Amino acid sequence: MCESNVYLKQGDHEELVMENVAAITPAENGVYVLRGLLGDMKEIKGTLADINLMAHRIVFTDAS
Amino acid sequence: MCESNVYLKQGDHEELVMENVAAITPAENGVYVLRGLLGDMKEIKGTLADINLMAHRIVFTDAS
Repeated sequence: MCESNVYLKQGDHEELVMENVAAITPAENGVYVLRGLLGDMKEIKGTLADINLMAHRIVFTDAS
Repeated sequence: MCESNVYLKQGDHEELVMENVAAITPAENGVYVLRGLLGDMKEIKGTLADINLMAHRIVFTDAS
């Protein structure tokens, strides 16, 4: 399927925040709401750095 | 495949900017570089509004 994994990059360190994300919606103050297919949900705060749909990778950098 | 179509929304009007986008990379000043599988490329200026990977839809709103 076409979900992507979402990562948060801080310096050289990259952390997997959520697997199989189906939708991403910006909220307030640099927060994004990540939604999975089954309604699972997480928030991430950062700046969008890269979307690679073929690699199923979406990377945010830590905004702090 | 898992490419998405990218749209630019201005008020109630939504325009298809590029079909089958495989990767999106933020550039300077609210500009994003859209890349297709075959190396085709376009730039869009706006604010990310929604990513829906199941519907293969990524929507930006016009920043002007």
